[in-house]
Amino acid sequence: MLLPCSANAADREAGKRMVENRCSFCHGMNGISSSPVIPNHRGQKPLYFVKQLKAFKDGSRKDPMMTVQAANLSEQDMENVAAYYSSLSCK
Amino acid sequence: MLLPCSANAADREAGKRMVENRCSFCHGMNGISSSPVIPNHRGQKPLYFVKQLKAFKDGSRKDPMMTVQAANLSEQDMENVAAYYSSLSCK
Repeated sequence: MLLPCSANAADREAGKRMVENRCSFCHGMNGISSSPVIPNHRGQKPLYFVKQLKAFKDGSRKDPMMTVQAANLSEQDMENVAAYYSSLSCK
Repeated sequence: MLLPCSANAADREAGKRMVENRCSFCHGMNGISSSPVIPNHRGQKPLYFVKQLKAFKDGSRKDPMMTVQAANLSEQDMENVAAYYSSLSCK
């Protein structure tokens, strides 16, 4: 039986589509946020990023907006979005 | 009586010194972290940044390392560090 070896690899393009439809309204397509109290994600470390989304989903980190947003994200979704934002240069 | 009008303004140079002595070991002088699970702060929004440090200090956001680090920071310290990291370009 053959299994795709990249089944759980982060998919940057899928992440980009999710950012377009959801995250970009606050965090921007370019990862620069629209508000001084909303974080930039441009170039952010992907493991840190996924850890925070998991924390919003499990309630260990609290934020009214992000709790709602993270509730419907799978771990694969989180990794995809992280792959997209982390791919943007911040130097 | 004369009062300095900038008494509570963020002091970027004081923030830079604090980053040198404390934050840079994990988050870098350039705001790029040393670990995939530690966030970058380069160009981060200062109000968001201060809000997170306050949350670590008051316990509403939990992290073993940051709880310790934030415990001894004044609000002025937080604003100074935020002024330093936010001044670094991330575009």
